[in-house]
Amino acid sequence: MRIVPLDEASKQNILADLLKRDPNQYSAYADTVQEIVDTVKKDRDKAVFQYTKQFDKADIDAANIRVTEQEIEEARKEVNPELLAVMKKSMKNIREFHEKQRQYSWFDSKPNGTILGQKVTALERAGVYVPGGKAAYPSSVLMNIIPAEVAGVNRIVMVTPPGRDGKVNPVTLTAAYLAGVTEVYKVGGAQAIAALAFGTESIPRVDKIVGPGNIFVALAKKAVYGHVSIDSIAGPSEILVLADESANPRFVAADLLSQAEHDELASAILVTASRELAEKVSLEAEAFANELSRSEIIKKSLDHYGYILVADSMEEAIAAVNEIAPEHLEIVTKNPFEDMTKIRHAGAIFIGEYSSEPLGDYFAGPNHVLPTNGTARFFSPLSVDDFIKKSSIVFYSKEALKEVHKDIEAFANAEYLTAHANSVKVRFEKEES
Amino acid sequence: MRIVPLDEASKQNILADLLKRDPNQYSAYADTVQEIVDTVKKDRDKAVFQYTKQFDKADIDAANIRVTEQEIEEARKEVNPELLAVMKKSMKNIREFHEKQRQYSWFDSKPNGTILGQKVTALERAGVYVPGGKAAYPSSVLMNIIPAEVAGVNRIVMVTPPGRDGKVNPVTLTAAYLAGVTEVYKVGGAQAIAALAFGTESIPRVDKIVGPGNIFVALAKKAVYGHVSIDSIAGPSEILVLADESANPRFVAADLLSQAEHDELASAILVTASRELAEKVSLEAEAFANELSRSEIIKKSLDHYGYILVADSMEEAIAAVNEIAPEHLEIVTKNPFEDMTKIRHAGAIFIGEYSSEPLGDYFAGPNHVLPTNGTARFFSPLSVDDFIKKSSIVFYSKEALKEVHKDIEAFANAEYLTAHANSVKVRFEKEES
Repeated sequence: MRIVPLDEASKQNILADLLKRDPNQYSAYADTVQEIVDTVKKDRDKAVFQYTKQFDKADIDAANIRVTEQEIEEARKEVNPELLAVMKKSMKNIREFHEKQRQYSWFDSKPNGTILGQKVTALERAGVYVPGGKAAYPSSVLMNIIPAEVAGVNRIVMVTPPGRDGKVNPVTLTAAYLAGVTEVYKVGGAQAIAALAFGTESIPRVDKIVGPGNIFVALAKKAVYGHVSIDSIAGPSEILVLADESANPRFVAADLLSQAEHDELASAILVTASRELAEKVSLEAEAFANELSRSEIIKKSLDHYGYILVADSMEEAIAAVNEIAPEHLEIVTKNPFEDMTKIRHAGAIFIGEYSSEPLGDYFAGPNHVLPTNGTARFFSPLSVDDFIKKSSIVFYSKEALKEVHKDIEAFANAEYLTAHANSVKVRFEKEES
Repeated sequence: MRIVPLDEASKQNILADLLKRDPNQYSAYADTVQEIVDTVKKDRDKAVFQYTKQFDKADIDAANIRVTEQEIEEARKEVNPELLAVMKKSMKNIREFHEKQRQYSWFDSKPNGTILGQKVTALERAGVYVPGGKAAYPSSVLMNIIPAEVAGVNRIVMVTPPGRDGKVNPVTLTAAYLAGVTEVYKVGGAQAIAALAFGTESIPRVDKIVGPGNIFVALAKKAVYGHVSIDSIAGPSEILVLADESANPRFVAADLLSQAEHDELASAILVTASRELAEKVSLEAEAFANELSRSEIIKKSLDHYGYILVADSMEEAIAAVNEIAPEHLEIVTKNPFEDMTKIRHAGAIFIGEYSSEPLGDYFAGPNHVLPTNGTARFFSPLSVDDFIKKSSIVFYSKEALKEVHKDIEAFANAEYLTAHANSVKVRFEKEES
């Protein structure tokens, strides 16, 4: 891995480079995606079946689009029992963590006869997109479905593209039913997002769509935003390790590569004030890159988006972390908890030498769907919050309103909204006339 | 107001009609807006000044774009002291309500050496859009700025279009500084949104943009979503009154008109099972519509989007409310609190005869920025939640990781992510070899 001094110029170059991976940049496909979305909105099932034939080479119709009980049972039998056992352990942790995110309605009353509050309600229907293809990511299925299930969503609707044989990956399917999905439909791509947003004869309209996908899926989610809610649009994976001379270079290198292997656009960055650590990590990373099975992807991703940044001080290093706002941050320093207090922007923070990032991807419990590409400045990890919404509650007694009605009228009249003023005034017209 | 029986056909027609007001439908302007956004991103201040000249006919440059201390003081002197006093009372209520929305970081530790948690951090910079024009809406300024201030946002940046004289409305400006804005720039329209999203020489880039605006502003917010966060895109105002025979028809009519006066696209709907109430409200509404100063707007909005729906039962009426998912809901029935428990989807719920909707617009404390156009199915009122974000925290001791590392490796290997497995494995390679 290349070693670069951390200065304003290198930081700005790297930030600009990372932003090039932003899915918002690929507007070249926006028109194609908009056309698919519009066609599904208009022709519904018919369009869904046609696009599935065209893109997935699968024959799907109203009779077989929804996964059946029998398919679920068959899929479960195909899953390695050891993997099934691990998934169950992991699920327990994920559920336990997300249970703690529950928010509750509250009401507050005052003796003058007012009640104000905030009512929390789960969404009725959530849609979960799960990518198809050869590789199945059951961990991602768990991470997207469990928060909805914990929130209390009535219908959790999963969509995933079928193979040419019209089947869905058995591990994906098993993970989905373990986690609490209520129904699964065999459709992928922009057409799946449009179907969830507007509904078709076979597929119910949902209130929110979550889950990762390729550029077509990301653009389709953006196109339907407003008709439904969506999670943040995920970019390629990122890891940033903040380490000092106390860190084990072999562990740091292994962790950097764990994200580099995701895809060629993934980014792996070490920020340190120790030149010695920088050099050791660089060597370890090269050794690992040659050994590991996804060697080619790792090398390309490190070439493009892998950096070891050497800062003059830990303060400078921490400032750089906050500017990059990484998806995953590992803090491997002498006082990692204290250093954590200085971090303002990161999706997930892994603290200390044994909190390797993949622990969070698979097992610890916090969600692995995290804001990427600097959006940790304003977005949060996927959570139970994503599947609830709030309503304000206002109650004033006659006496309470009477006390303040002239103030409200004055404010409304100042905005020239006389019908607003009238609605309060009319309630006291008899007694005050 | 027209009286229509509530049945499936009328409900579907009305829902379709209401959705026509969706800002997502006006894609005709999307290209124009995208061009403005791209130009501001590229040419920065220069583009901002040119568009301000073109659209607002005002001469703005780097020397006068930011509102000065002197302008703030002059503006304050122009504000009616009575209005100022009312705004201060209202602000106290708004702040008190939003203080209750604060969320706190939490950590949970287990004796085996694990700490998991969720860290809450305020956004660093928020942008608030405030429309210009003749009518100033200081209540809206308070409602958009106070949640950011309560959340602890460092820089609260307001943008608002200048008049031809290069000045900003004095009431708007005074409300903004009362509420805690840190800086105000004289720029409006899509160019203001682009400036906040990407930054210019004069205007800082922000993390989130909130605030109402015309169709150009709404489309620009959608265009920059992902680079920054945005609030939900607001459609025209809506009120739905759910009432039974116990309701005062004159109060109900006055409340319906309070929203109808906003603009011609506003919607006012009464749902009731009482034919008698329906007829009385219709008469009262017609009388008010002739009396009130915004008579013309009220009549147009009632013609297009005003309905009195007569249901066969209160159960049916409540089901219709949940399908419409109104921005503002008033419940004026014999047991309004009990009926409230059956409401799943509404932005704000006003309970009982004296909780007139404008009480919430101006005074009670809950936010008046609410989800419109059926989006209360999945969006919430603007709140402190909009100005914070969360980071997950993961700590495992060596012992804790050792206990589960083989599970993590098995899960990672099942996804063919061998570098993920390696990052855990490497930590125990010596002792287990």
